[in-house]
Amino acid sequence: MNGAQSLIQTLVNGGVSVCFTNPGTSEMAFVAAVDRVPGMRTILALFEGVATGAADGYARMTGVPACTLLHLGPGLGNGIANLHNARRAHSPLINIVGEHATWHQKYDAPLASDIHALAGNVSGWIGTCTTPHGVPRDAVNALIAARRPPGQVATVIFPGDCMWTESSSPLPAPDLIPPAHVDPATIDHVAVMLRQAQARGEPTALYAGGPAWTAHGQELVSRIGQAVGARVFGHRFSPRGARGVGIAQLTRLAYPIPQAQKQLEGIKHLVMVGVTRPVGFFGYPNLPSELQPADCAMHTLAALNEDVIGALEALADALHAPRTVANRNSFVAPDLPTGDLTIEKIWLSLAAQLPEGAVISDEALTSSLASDDWMSAAAPHDWLAVTGGSIGQGMPVATGAAVACPGRKIINMQADGSAMYTIQSLWTQAREQLDVITVVFNNRKYAILQSEMKAIGLEVGPKAHDMLRLDSPTLDFVSLARGMGVPASRATTQDEFNRALAIGLHETGPRLIEVLT
Amino acid sequence: MNGAQSLIQTLVNGGVSVCFTNPGTSEMAFVAAVDRVPGMRTILALFEGVATGAADGYARMTGVPACTLLHLGPGLGNGIANLHNARRAHSPLINIVGEHATWHQKYDAPLASDIHALAGNVSGWIGTCTTPHGVPRDAVNALIAARRPPGQVATVIFPGDCMWTESSSPLPAPDLIPPAHVDPATIDHVAVMLRQAQARGEPTALYAGGPAWTAHGQELVSRIGQAVGARVFGHRFSPRGARGVGIAQLTRLAYPIPQAQKQLEGIKHLVMVGVTRPVGFFGYPNLPSELQPADCAMHTLAALNEDVIGALEALADALHAPRTVANRNSFVAPDLPTGDLTIEKIWLSLAAQLPEGAVISDEALTSSLASDDWMSAAAPHDWLAVTGGSIGQGMPVATGAAVACPGRKIINMQADGSAMYTIQSLWTQAREQLDVITVVFNNRKYAILQSEMKAIGLEVGPKAHDMLRLDSPTLDFVSLARGMGVPASRATTQDEFNRALAIGLHETGPRLIEVLT
Repeated sequence: MNGAQSLIQTLVNGGVSVCFTNPGTSEMAFVAAVDRVPGMRTILALFEGVATGAADGYARMTGVPACTLLHLGPGLGNGIANLHNARRAHSPLINIVGEHATWHQKYDAPLASDIHALAGNVSGWIGTCTTPHGVPRDAVNALIAARRPPGQVATVIFPGDCMWTESSSPLPAPDLIPPAHVDPATIDHVAVMLRQAQARGEPTALYAGGPAWTAHGQELVSRIGQAVGARVFGHRFSPRGARGVGIAQLTRLAYPIPQAQKQLEGIKHLVMVGVTRPVGFFGYPNLPSELQPADCAMHTLAALNEDVIGALEALADALHAPRTVANRNSFVAPDLPTGDLTIEKIWLSLAAQLPEGAVISDEALTSSLASDDWMSAAAPHDWLAVTGGSIGQGMPVATGAAVACPGRKIINMQADGSAMYTIQSLWTQAREQLDVITVVFNNRKYAILQSEMKAIGLEVGPKAHDMLRLDSPTLDFVSLARGMGVPASRATTQDEFNRALAIGLHETGPRLIEVLT
Repeated sequence: MNGAQSLIQTLVNGGVSVCFTNPGTSEMAFVAAVDRVPGMRTILALFEGVATGAADGYARMTGVPACTLLHLGPGLGNGIANLHNARRAHSPLINIVGEHATWHQKYDAPLASDIHALAGNVSGWIGTCTTPHGVPRDAVNALIAARRPPGQVATVIFPGDCMWTESSSPLPAPDLIPPAHVDPATIDHVAVMLRQAQARGEPTALYAGGPAWTAHGQELVSRIGQAVGARVFGHRFSPRGARGVGIAQLTRLAYPIPQAQKQLEGIKHLVMVGVTRPVGFFGYPNLPSELQPADCAMHTLAALNEDVIGALEALADALHAPRTVANRNSFVAPDLPTGDLTIEKIWLSLAAQLPEGAVISDEALTSSLASDDWMSAAAPHDWLAVTGGSIGQGMPVATGAAVACPGRKIINMQADGSAMYTIQSLWTQAREQLDVITVVFNNRKYAILQSEMKAIGLEVGPKAHDMLRLDSPTLDFVSLARGMGVPASRATTQDEFNRALAIGLHETGPRLIEVLT
């Protein structure tokens, strides 16, 4: 058994069954080995950012790592942006990065570069294989590292000869590190503090992210809030949330700093669970970086690597929180909107038609600012949010979610500018016949940057204005989709959109709807 | 004058007049400043790999750096692959990478990452700006670094507040470091060695790259070869070469190691000029990394950071080399090929129709293996070759070359798989109405990997075979081009190709021709 075969068998033993690939010469032994070792599905991407983003989406939906297969430093480089997002999502993920054969490395051949330095930018753990016999051990270490709570990107660099040379036997699935339990003293401290603040009439708030965004987690946070009269907020950039009818849906902190400050106004104690302190996405002149009031005391109930749900349950018990939740989303039979096409109506049409258990990959950015409200009356669904802010995430994450969840409808709500970073995703969706509907909001501009210019206080002259426009020429996403084998249509009225969406929801397989907004 | 304005003015003073941009929030002050400081043309790309590759193409054609404007770590990450190629091309290039405002960096906001580590993979020099008043000095250091012989990638990280805050005055153009002169003793040593080897009947060869690939450089190498009966070879991956009628065109060392070994068989002395020792692109089982015979002595006439042309002139004088060159390409009135479409006929059609002074960006890979032969009877032209081997180079380099050389026709001979890494280049070509004809060889596979599998000795099973195919679905480059505003057509016969190329050469502006081979 050569190194590549032993690697794949060890990964399969450890529960990894999908590899998103974009290989080159140095990874050919891995590619050949897939025919010799059963159990690893390989999914080809035309660009590495699709592969890494898909692995992120897959991990968010399964909790289990997929692996990627990347070609040397440049291949990893192309995957960096979505690995950055995966890092912020705390997605378990294993990068298999090829390297020149061990004896060839000293020659500084054209494709040689400092892979380790690149990997360091995004990886919680990096391994470098040095002998064929070390391959299965390196694979096991990557499996353990990727699933170290709360999950992280693990990168292993494999020289070509370690892959094609005879290796040692594959290893069994390793024991994983469980999440740490929260000290009962911490639970008590937070419970006492919340009670005392309530007694003194001091406003408090809970701020939740990570596993607290599950339906169960949001319910626990809401019950605790009710028990002590605390406001409850969610982290805007958590990887996966539950939303829709029946969910005790948390309000997310706003993106603009002044709006988030307003939400937290007057709070004297902020309890963080599954999240770090709330900070601005960017720094701005004359605005603080931290969002809470200056005199607000900060308390951590559970960090992301701890048992977040267990801590919430213990706190709810300690506070004798009510069993019923007041703010659960209720069902409002939504009418299909009609008339002129607007962003709001597009979302409301989706809410009205969404099947239960759908998954929404949301990178609509400025076209999604109020989507939590618009989607609250939809059938319960999961949504996958922007995490690290590196755009080009929505389409790959939708691709990976579709691989992870056959039988569930995936909807990718997608901004136009962001779509163009990883537009190659559509080809993989067509090749694998993934059940993804992509809705592209073609507003023909980098709308978010136009508002950021104002937020920084900059004057926008004609050349600057030109740098934020995408209308010369206007992108034609219907042609782009067709070029990659995905059926597509353009909606210019609300009725056209309703109909196109209905068809997409009725059929299976990839489809793109372009809306001019 | 704020930091961004002082930065741009200093760059303009230093001869930088083009910025390939893909900015985000942290770079908005730079974008706004372009309207306040004249002299910097900004060219928007939809993906950072287009911006960095275009800066490489621009530098290859002008010798002068363009700058890029990139958004934090992920933006730089997306640009890494083509910066790798630019590094191998020794292209002078300045990356302006935005960073969070200085006071905001400690909060580890979602987009924070280790930019310096990423930049290290590709940069010969890295600067990090820490105060607004330091901006012009950082810009000057980047100008000096980028043009340090033979040219390199210089990266400067600018926090947002250093850009939008009042800064010090712009600085004038700095003095640049000239290339080092080659020691006359080295010239003498090589001259004596070549003469002695000739006297002893020992085969010798010259191996040339970098500036030796100009028309003048190739002529000097050829004259020296004639003087001492040495074989002459060129480095396969030099950034820019002169080719066509009237050029003393050097034969490049082959990509497959056994073929290159055959070319160098029996050589006892190899003289390197503007190049390092010849090594395999990859390491393979049972093949050496070094291409020259084991008993071949290696001599360096001039390294890339030295005055390569001066050294060749001195050596030619020392050897009293003949003034006339025997192996100059001669004109053979080429007929337009007809009938079935083949790779060879496509190139011969190009050779027959090529206008003098055209520039060819060649990333056709397996469809380009014999292009030096096919293009030798074409009108004299420049060609821009693959340098670092990170695919997705051809279209951005063509884009940058077109910006650098208005009035010259740019032809991008492009493989299909590679095209898809930076296909967004077409939109920038449409937006700027660049005079680029893209010929896409749509062979519906990663052909090069299919041969690499065999070279490594691996058996290709059905799943592996599937990973090297691009025919499910087949990419439709005509639709992709139209989606980005570039007129396009598909040629299925040689006559159709001849005609499409003739139209493209007659008109100006971007155009794509897809050939099914």
